[in-house]
Amino acid sequence: MSGNTFGKLFSVTTFGESHGAALGCIIDGCPPGLALSEEDMQRDLDRRKPGTSRHTTQRREADEVRILSGVFEGKTTGTPIGLLIENTDQRSKDYSKIASQFRPAHADYSYHHKYGVRDYRGGGRSSARETAMRVAAGAVARKFLEQRLGIRIRGYLSQLGPIKAEVLDWDQVHQNPFFCPDASKVPEMESYMDALRKEGDSIGARINVVAEGVPPGLGEPIFDRLDADLAHALMSINAVKGVEVGAGFACIEQKGTEHRDEMTPEGFLSNHAGGVLGGISSGQPIVASIALKPTSSLRLPGRGIDVDGNPVEVVTTGRHDPCVGIRATPIAEAMMAIVLMDHYLRHRGQNGDVVVSTPVLGQL
Amino acid sequence: MSGNTFGKLFSVTTFGESHGAALGCIIDGCPPGLALSEEDMQRDLDRRKPGTSRHTTQRREADEVRILSGVFEGKTTGTPIGLLIENTDQRSKDYSKIASQFRPAHADYSYHHKYGVRDYRGGGRSSARETAMRVAAGAVARKFLEQRLGIRIRGYLSQLGPIKAEVLDWDQVHQNPFFCPDASKVPEMESYMDALRKEGDSIGARINVVAEGVPPGLGEPIFDRLDADLAHALMSINAVKGVEVGAGFACIEQKGTEHRDEMTPEGFLSNHAGGVLGGISSGQPIVASIALKPTSSLRLPGRGIDVDGNPVEVVTTGRHDPCVGIRATPIAEAMMAIVLMDHYLRHRGQNGDVVVSTPVLGQL
Amino acid sequence: MSGNTFGKLFSVTTFGESHGAALGCIIDGCPPGLALSEEDMQRDLDRRKPGTSRHTTQRREADEVRILSGVFEGKTTGTPIGLLIENTDQRSKDYSKIASQFRPAHADYSYHHKYGVRDYRGGGRSSARETAMRVAAGAVARKFLEQRLGIRIRGYLSQLGPIKAEVLDWDQVHQNPFFCPDASKVPEMESYMDALRKEGDSIGARINVVAEGVPPGLGEPIFDRLDADLAHALMSINAVKGVEVGAGFACIEQKGTEHRDEMTPEGFLSNHAGGVLGGISSGQPIVASIALKPTSSLRLPGRGIDVDGNPVEVVTTGRHDPCVGIRATPIAEAMMAIVLMDHYLRHRGQNGDVVVSTPVLGQL
Amino acid sequence: MSGNTFGKLFSVTTFGESHGAALGCIIDGCPPGLALSEEDMQRDLDRRKPGTSRHTTQRREADEVRILSGVFEGKTTGTPIGLLIENTDQRSKDYSKIASQFRPAHADYSYHHKYGVRDYRGGGRSSARETAMRVAAGAVARKFLEQRLGIRIRGYLSQLGPIKAEVLDWDQVHQNPFFCPDASKVPEMESYMDALRKEGDSIGARINVVAEGVPPGLGEPIFDRLDADLAHALMSINAVKGVEVGAGFACIEQKGTEHRDEMTPEGFLSNHAGGVLGGISSGQPIVASIALKPTSSLRLPGRGIDVDGNPVEVVTTGRHDPCVGIRATPIAEAMMAIVLMDHYLRHRGQNGDVVVSTPVLGQL
Repeated sequence: MSGNTFGKLFSVTTFGESHGAALGCIIDGCPPGLALSEEDMQRDLDRRKPGTSRHTTQRREADEVRILSGVFEGKTTGTPIGLLIENTDQRSKDYSKIASQFRPAHADYSYHHKYGVRDYRGGGRSSARETAMRVAAGAVARKFLEQRLGIRIRGYLSQLGPIKAEVLDWDQVHQNPFFCPDASKVPEMESYMDALRKEGDSIGARINVVAEGVPPGLGEPIFDRLDADLAHALMSINAVKGVEVGAGFACIEQKGTEHRDEMTPEGFLSNHAGGVLGGISSGQPIVASIALKPTSSLRLPGRGIDVDGNPVEVVTTGRHDPCVGIRATPIAEAMMAIVLMDHYLRHRGQNGDVVVSTPVLGQL
Repeated sequence: MSGNTFGKLFSVTTFGESHGAALGCIIDGCPPGLALSEEDMQRDLDRRKPGTSRHTTQRREADEVRILSGVFEGKTTGTPIGLLIENTDQRSKDYSKIASQFRPAHADYSYHHKYGVRDYRGGGRSSARETAMRVAAGAVARKFLEQRLGIRIRGYLSQLGPIKAEVLDWDQVHQNPFFCPDASKVPEMESYMDALRKEGDSIGARINVVAEGVPPGLGEPIFDRLDADLAHALMSINAVKGVEVGAGFACIEQKGTEHRDEMTPEGFLSNHAGGVLGGISSGQPIVASIALKPTSSLRLPGRGIDVDGNPVEVVTTGRHDPCVGIRATPIAEAMMAIVLMDHYLRHRGQNGDVVVSTPVLGQL
Repeated sequence: MSGNTFGKLFSVTTFGESHGAALGCIIDGCPPGLALSEEDMQRDLDRRKPGTSRHTTQRREADEVRILSGVFEGKTTGTPIGLLIENTDQRSKDYSKIASQFRPAHADYSYHHKYGVRDYRGGGRSSARETAMRVAAGAVARKFLEQRLGIRIRGYLSQLGPIKAEVLDWDQVHQNPFFCPDASKVPEMESYMDALRKEGDSIGARINVVAEGVPPGLGEPIFDRLDADLAHALMSINAVKGVEVGAGFACIEQKGTEHRDEMTPEGFLSNHAGGVLGGISSGQPIVASIALKPTSSLRLPGRGIDVDGNPVEVVTTGRHDPCVGIRATPIAEAMMAIVLMDHYLRHRGQNGDVVVSTPVLGQL
Repeated sequence: MSGNTFGKLFSVTTFGESHGAALGCIIDGCPPGLALSEEDMQRDLDRRKPGTSRHTTQRREADEVRILSGVFEGKTTGTPIGLLIENTDQRSKDYSKIASQFRPAHADYSYHHKYGVRDYRGGGRSSARETAMRVAAGAVARKFLEQRLGIRIRGYLSQLGPIKAEVLDWDQVHQNPFFCPDASKVPEMESYMDALRKEGDSIGARINVVAEGVPPGLGEPIFDRLDADLAHALMSINAVKGVEVGAGFACIEQKGTEHRDEMTPEGFLSNHAGGVLGGISSGQPIVASIALKPTSSLRLPGRGIDVDGNPVEVVTTGRHDPCVGIRATPIAEAMMAIVLMDHYLRHRGQNGDVVVSTPVLGQL
């Protein structure tokens, strides 16, 4: 049981249902002395927030986070940080259908079999709304990593359905509603999304996340490898069906002479490893990529069954994201930040000290 | 620190270096009453064992496992199961080079930065030899799952470099040295591997694993989702760079109407989800796929540096697998078994009972 | 780091400072299907609440708990239960002294050395106010244990300073402000406390807790013994300096023939073990006893130092409990409930089932 | 389930039955760079070893420990340390009686109800023989703490049945078979034990453990308080029924003015707290005390039942310790060392660094 906590020393535990009273989280293990305010989290929350363009759900969620503990006179104290977001946009509506139907590709069916009961309103606990707290917690990790270690974590949408971003221009990422780093592809994405919305269908996406400035030596090999924990964290995001580190699935067709990242005194000559060797950071950028499935809440009818096993036709009329991947960039960044933070706190080097190596090699 | 344990209730902790005295593991949490002997593990260990064909390393490792505790009169007692494999093939050789060099794409560099010291003989703790204990522990989980719940876990090599298996014939998997389910592709694989060995290069591979008979309801949503734990487990296997569940990365280009697995009273109509909905098993087969990178231990020279930062030319002369993916099938099966076992033990349904649902729907 | 979570499968994580915005907690792992409302917790919270007699602090804390998640249509859903108590009685006062002084026997000094910063208002995180959330979480565990397993957990004050309760009459426990089961000792306690309050001093106490109806078989031997987890849980309560199970320290002078609880077909003949054999419940009542130190917040001046190491005279003028033990009974009950709940959920018997044995023997 | 692991970052997992093939343990999380050999552990193992005087069991156990991994060229590498003790003194004897009988005050009865099966030979997993691995693991922690932090951990027997040590002369502790620090009481203890052995009875004991040189700031407040973890660790030792920190149960009758440890610029004026304030070390010595029950394996017959519920007369003929407390001193020291080591590794101070404070105050 349980399962709502991530992280061993930087532990994030969340609660809350989509249409319940509130979402909340406890961050346990944040070191003392970090300047922290609601604004630090709000910035990232606003990036995840729905309704910021016509391409995402038009639900209104203020997503205003309150710090309830763990911060005193503007600084963290080392005690647990309690966070709360009250739910405001709980439209009262008729849930009788959703209560007795299993919608295809939703968690209704599996939750029903696990728990017997479920809060079906808006997907309850299985709603992606839960990720708001991950973003808030990630913002704390991110601030620490940036200020203390100079680590910068950034993500972008690298593919929307069939459309791939081919240029990585970080400056473009926040200039469009897709987090797309390739300005030339934005118009194509816009029309693709407009057509999709008209159709009533949805589409998958790919998000890449990169952490720069990570010192070598983070990660505990064997089971708690940095990349294994990262895979855990990223696969735990709603709708994610695949995770890659570095070359990822492309390595299947790579030869060893191509894949191995050669080293010279000036630095690594490539980064197929994605910044992780033997489960431990190498000092190169940590690079991960995830695949997000298309949402299954569609206006187009689909076959489902009801709780008695009878066939039903399911049509979703609510306000849903036609591409859940679009809003996932801040979530993926948050999860990478949480993983790195946890591994930084777990790391103990020679004689039990926390010396973090300066890399011998330049970063590629 | 730590990080050598996997599983919350079915916990597997391993120790041992490639060229050290022994490998060992403690399985903590195996329920009492399971008939268990060394043979149950040996079968799987032998499938992973090197030197069984010309396509894998010619190192000889007996990999004979001994049960030291936790089994009494042929049955598990519920107390921890201690397992030991003594290392026998420790060729004494000159390690002076490897001790001071960082080989490209090896864990030498990252271990050095983390620990300051390392057992460099044969890769020490970062050697894939460590996975022998995972296979042994997985065999215990697998036996329990099969006998108690009727779950069957099987894997196969679905791609070797550029060559894809196109037919899934389970009967073929153990008829060739590659775990390839498509007999028609075996000759091609053989000649590919022969050429590769001659060249001195290596290649990546893809392994698929499938668990059939998994009841709906296993998995703890949010962070300890069944698929997130599976991603963790599979990404923790040496050389793995990518993990997919169900449709995986293909879902990026899928529309919602295509991806969503519709349900009828007779069963699901597809399994793009890979048997997991909202982090919880749906009763469909759990399907995962992993990418393994080509080994970096090559006869062909590569650029590396030494501990002082000077450039060195690295040539590996030892006995290495030109495709580490070939022997990875039993390891992937083992990790899936451990994950399912752990989630079975963690599962508590309504009123805290362990009732595992009988699926309403037939399996696809 | 971290450390604000108790329990492996029934996990309680708390946050909140004495004079912060709120106290909160997340209960992760409560099985679905339990009828639950705020009233279930409020009853126990009210028993812990200060200001109910002249013998406890006269601070007013409403301690009104709100359920924010995990309960739907009056029943738990298996998802995390978020609880919140807003702080209402935050008197604004001058904290300049306490901010720079280390009061004797307070956590000021150790928190300062650990964290560098601290929320000094009212003791911040180290205040016993934190235990309110334990009581709320314990009430959930207690309700489950009672309804599902028929386990009853009750505590009482067995000694207040030099005055020992000699009769255990459960009906008396809630008839007096001390949770004293021996009515004949209540007048003595009242005058003792009145004198103490006049003096400005404080006194220690002993609390006993008993769980009846616990089935045999709960507890995981070696490190996670039922009694070891109980010792952990009870010693984690503010002011506790000692924990006993069964005969406790009296066993030092017992001979084996006296201590060993003989068994007959009709039942055990004694319960010196306190219901735990080899770390596992025996079916007899679980009996524990704790010692609580006198509070150190006294009107009588004591020697302390300030943050610069200079000597200071410390006088506490606030509203404090002259005997913190008086209000500790519900807290000790709560922690025992949480431990038993966690072990019930962790327990898996033969073949991995959760069969809980019916004791062969009657209970003593 | 599980439960055979102690420690979050310095994790000790043990396996092994009294009369099985071997005892073993994995220490996961020992920092790299510590000089370590079998001798470091053997010294403490020999102090626990039976048969060293006529006052302990005459069983012969060589208890020779082998390091199987984690140490390279005489130093720890940061990878898990595998330890093994092969069992040598496994007398083949007739176990038919013990197999079907529940002996009073043994774990037979509770193990039977938990697991359904059990290895009854010599107590199986519930035998105190398991503590050998704790002593071995503790020796590693102790060496690190001593070399890296200057922490010294020492224990002694402070009471044997009715006989109390009244003088604490550390030099005496290893001059007698009882670990008694008061030379004047040794003759009395010897004749008491001789009489007891003749009688066929057993007796309880009290052990004190003290850690000196512990820096302030170790311990994670609320649930993972240093004293709570210590209580957990000490109560998990076989036969322990009570744990005290500092004044312990004596604090019940102490007034606040007496109990509070006043501070002056020269140091604390007393140590009733036992070195822990608010769950965090204060820089004073950590002082704990435990009560060990008399062994229940007696030549004098006792009433038990058999597995069918029939009354039986139980007589133990084996070689048993008449006072298990005598050999418990090294075990208690080991557990305290493991707790302190774990908390040292978990500790992260301001900005996430591991600065351990130099105490402002002298130690008492």
